[in-house]
Amino acid sequence: MAEILIAGVGTTTFGDHAGRTGRELFAEARSSALAESAVSSSDIDALYYGNYMGETAERQSHQAPLMASGIGTTGLEATRVENACASGGYAVADGVRAIESGAADVVLVGGLERMTNLETAETTAALARAADELHEGRPGLTFPGAYALLADAYMERFGGTREDLAHIAVKNHENAATNPNAQFHNEISVADVLETPQVADPLGLLDACPISDGAAAAVLISGEYAAEHNLSPAVAITGSGRGTDSLSLQEREDLTRTKAAESAAQAAYSGADVTADDVDVAEVHDCFTIAEVLALEALGFYQPGEAITAARDGETAHDGQLPTNLSGGLKAKGHPVGATGVGQLVELTKLLAGTHPNANAVPGAEVGVTHNAGGTVATAAVHVLEVAR
Amino acid sequence: MAEILIAGVGTTTFGDHAGRTGRELFAEARSSALAESAVSSSDIDALYYGNYMGETAERQSHQAPLMASGIGTTGLEATRVENACASGGYAVADGVRAIESGAADVVLVGGLERMTNLETAETTAALARAADELHEGRPGLTFPGAYALLADAYMERFGGTREDLAHIAVKNHENAATNPNAQFHNEISVADVLETPQVADPLGLLDACPISDGAAAAVLISGEYAAEHNLSPAVAITGSGRGTDSLSLQEREDLTRTKAAESAAQAAYSGADVTADDVDVAEVHDCFTIAEVLALEALGFYQPGEAITAARDGETAHDGQLPTNLSGGLKAKGHPVGATGVGQLVELTKLLAGTHPNANAVPGAEVGVTHNAGGTVATAAVHVLEVAR
Repeated sequence: MAEILIAGVGTTTFGDHAGRTGRELFAEARSSALAESAVSSSDIDALYYGNYMGETAERQSHQAPLMASGIGTTGLEATRVENACASGGYAVADGVRAIESGAADVVLVGGLERMTNLETAETTAALARAADELHEGRPGLTFPGAYALLADAYMERFGGTREDLAHIAVKNHENAATNPNAQFHNEISVADVLETPQVADPLGLLDACPISDGAAAAVLISGEYAAEHNLSPAVAITGSGRGTDSLSLQEREDLTRTKAAESAAQAAYSGADVTADDVDVAEVHDCFTIAEVLALEALGFYQPGEAITAARDGETAHDGQLPTNLSGGLKAKGHPVGATGVGQLVELTKLLAGTHPNANAVPGAEVGVTHNAGGTVATAAVHVLEVAR
Repeated sequence: MAEILIAGVGTTTFGDHAGRTGRELFAEARSSALAESAVSSSDIDALYYGNYMGETAERQSHQAPLMASGIGTTGLEATRVENACASGGYAVADGVRAIESGAADVVLVGGLERMTNLETAETTAALARAADELHEGRPGLTFPGAYALLADAYMERFGGTREDLAHIAVKNHENAATNPNAQFHNEISVADVLETPQVADPLGLLDACPISDGAAAAVLISGEYAAEHNLSPAVAITGSGRGTDSLSLQEREDLTRTKAAESAAQAAYSGADVTADDVDVAEVHDCFTIAEVLALEALGFYQPGEAITAARDGETAHDGQLPTNLSGGLKAKGHPVGATGVGQLVELTKLLAGTHPNANAVPGAEVGVTHNAGGTVATAAVHVLEVAR
């Protein structure tokens, strides 16, 4: 893979930004990323931008040129990517590809979602459109129910308990408590998770990520551009992979594995010339606690059926062998859908660069991975980040 | 630019497909393209897919994996691109880039829109979301009004009449009459255009494209893949360019020029190493008659202020020096938004290959161009196609 460096990252806090517009939130993230990058905005060749539900939430489609306004000339490209909750990760992947193709030296990748401005029922309905309308939406399946089906299938085949899952929520809240960008700063207990109302058996309210507003952005540059401009970013993207699965669950042979993420991970590891064993730290798509289990297995950190106890055993905790979601994850950092995949890049970059408030958990970490999933992992984007040499 | 060949193209008819789903329409276009390509579906590395308003029209976001179902493995990538009416052209551009980057040898590019299943007022509202919600949507500007502002500005500066514009509609209906894929097969007269109700002064009903359903697809392959598989497609994509402008009209210095399209054209011509003078045939984004005028000037075929009389003078007619919209254009072939940019590629490929019903208008044509615009040309994608050598 061509050398692709992360020159700067920026993000808003994730949470409730009542009264702020999407364009304002994105401008905040974009400005932070550009300022950190020391890249002139007029050098940006392209924007790849993830957004999921702008049509519904802000009556605004065609957001890419809006978010590009003011950062460049009319020669700037601006493209919106929508792959449900993986929109941000796919925007990153397309940004990487723009540099790899030689078409661009400087790419802004970003994502945004405004969600809290709708009534919760409207947001739930908008999110449900990421499932197969014919086979899932029309019968009334929403994502808590869909992930509950995955949890059921997993537990039926491999075992595991609600307590096992609760440990994931507890861990991610603990990590978020020290991340100022996170939506939640309250620590929770296993008892809290088990006592909250069931949303869809076996998942309870605290097994689920919240509804969030937020934006994130990163400036990617080619190695040539870095050399020409005397820039030495601390972190590089060395692998980028994507995978796809059937949109509806009914078409899958096996509900206990997320093959789109497996494919994406293989492609990303291959590009980076690393294996799962080389990874020191991970940010994975834990929209529900069970999703973190499926992610850890798809990424090859655990064999199928073995990741369910990882959090309970402390292996993925801040002081474990593979700290996972040190940001707090979607679960506690928040999940502004289109921003999430880019937000993972922002957090992991800071963790590897040593500038993250939780970076002390991973001293000397050299290799990290982000895992971003759309729907019930019908789409997945995986990126390998490494400390730049 | 790397050698990128168009191995096969497919399309549904454009028009009213009441009772058919988007997935069904796209499968029809996809199957036609694959059959013509002689490429095995299992060889497809990636799908780039344009769709504008699926959330609204079919309550279906996250369409890319749905449209990829059944054509490949979980290693297949599938990405939805949304850039309003330029979604299809941007999907083509990203497909080209995937091959250029070396990540893919075979890419399916496609687009789809279902529009007639909504009430007309709902469709108009959904389309209006492609304009700037804050500065244009909220005050009530819809696209007929926005393009009327562009026509007003143009005519005030350069002159021109409603009759001049009417000749564009007449020409494009004449071309559509012999294109079985077109929505309209009725020829119209200048008097018809002038006598129909005004939609937004100076534009009347017949200055506007219709609301349409439809899908289009194309199989792009690398030169290496073609050589390995003994394939000799007739047409290549030799240039791909994109440009961006402010989303709202109020931020532009000059309403008589579409700078996003100018930038896209320059990039595409540069990649193909051609100039406007080399182009034999064009498919341009004539959502309103004035848009064809602006397109012809942005593409460099005419100086600013000079394209208004091109249709009236017969220069862009089937027997003119630069046949434009031989397909019938958006005006008469139809405009299923997300499919349009890919549909232009389908039509132009057939025109250059000599397999289009209107190909007899351009015997010996070697170079063609497609021009696809989003909103009031806040985004634009331009592609140069050439007879493969």
